[in-house]
Amino acid sequence: MPKLTIAQNILAANDTIAQEIQQLLVLRGIRTINVMSSPGAGKTTLLERTIERLRGELAIGVIEGDIETSADAERIEAAGAETIQINTRGACHLEAHMIRDALEELDLAHIDLLFIENIGNLVCPSAWHLGEDLRAVMVSTTEGDDKPAKYPQMFAVSHVMIVNKLDLLPYVDYDLAKVKRQALAINPDLRIFDVSCRMGEGLDAWCEWLVTFANGKIKI
Amino acid sequence: MPKLTIAQNILAANDTIAQEIQQLLVLRGIRTINVMSSPGAGKTTLLERTIERLRGELAIGVIEGDIETSADAERIEAAGAETIQINTRGACHLEAHMIRDALEELDLAHIDLLFIENIGNLVCPSAWHLGEDLRAVMVSTTEGDDKPAKYPQMFAVSHVMIVNKLDLLPYVDYDLAKVKRQALAINPDLRIFDVSCRMGEGLDAWCEWLVTFANGKIKI
Repeated sequence: MPKLTIAQNILAANDTIAQEIQQLLVLRGIRTINVMSSPGAGKTTLLERTIERLRGELAIGVIEGDIETSADAERIEAAGAETIQINTRGACHLEAHMIRDALEELDLAHIDLLFIENIGNLVCPSAWHLGEDLRAVMVSTTEGDDKPAKYPQMFAVSHVMIVNKLDLLPYVDYDLAKVKRQALAINPDLRIFDVSCRMGEGLDAWCEWLVTFANGKIKI
Repeated sequence: MPKLTIAQNILAANDTIAQEIQQLLVLRGIRTINVMSSPGAGKTTLLERTIERLRGELAIGVIEGDIETSADAERIEAAGAETIQINTRGACHLEAHMIRDALEELDLAHIDLLFIENIGNLVCPSAWHLGEDLRAVMVSTTEGDDKPAKYPQMFAVSHVMIVNKLDLLPYVDYDLAKVKRQALAINPDLRIFDVSCRMGEGLDAWCEWLVTFANGKIKI
């Protein structure tokens, strides 16, 4: 079936570039996290709060993926991290060649931990490796508690799940335990963090874990 | 550039099937709405509340698109509409040939208004016409107020924008007027409805408009 073959070739070519990126980043001592979620789950806010909390402790760089606008990169830069914006102009996910180009614009000598903020999309980004050490999927309490079951591939390929908007739990019908059960049934190795990026809840544990991870003490 | 050509051919083939679907539905006197949004914006809940409110007034059919699970179709059926579930098994959007197959399973003689609930994805579904009379994009107050600017294509191809989760406005940082300004700058013809599917706010106006639309009194 020719369509499928083409898709497989494209993904294989992407994986080759992703491997080159990973080798480069390992050589530079940089650990990298690819952050994925639905639109509006809170990826940019998580990065803002994380950068503020870890200032002076970890040098964080961010590659911001958006279809259009550079609003997120401006927010991240204001929070104090070196940032580069990728605009995909329609494409629904980041690809490894975009990351390769972006890395040429970043001062890698001064980065310990690199975040790649993917396009807001719970489907397509899961198929495209970017040379990251780990993939983090973010969900939020306002999205409904059926997301792992309905978008299983994203949870299968992720190492970390972050549940955001804990502060809104009293106002929505969301069974947090059910979401965790669903996610762990798909991927029993998933490390889970519950946070409220708006109110700060859970961010200490997340940042503590990040420091350990960036220092190479957590192997994926 | 071969990749682009392939993509254009696939979209052109999809549009041909979409036109056949539209002709069939027009012949049957059925009006059709393709509902799109991020995961968890509230599409299924909107359809549940709409079906309950219009019971006895309009015969509603629903084609439910999900990557996996039939949970949404079960909710819709419980609300009282004839439903068929499409599981795309990984695909990030519905395509016209899926709708053509689904229509063979529905009792078209007893449907006035057909909803197609697309995969939760603010990007890919915007490129795939399904034979619908109109496209409705749903956003929610918990997703951040930058969605039209960041995902402009979805708002450019839609006829209707529904802003859901009005009941959560007091608990989030969301500038509703800004979202409408952004959306109307992209698409000045967008018809906008503000609703809370959970509390019922705004659903009277939405249902009233739907009845007028289903009766053929609103031309797109």
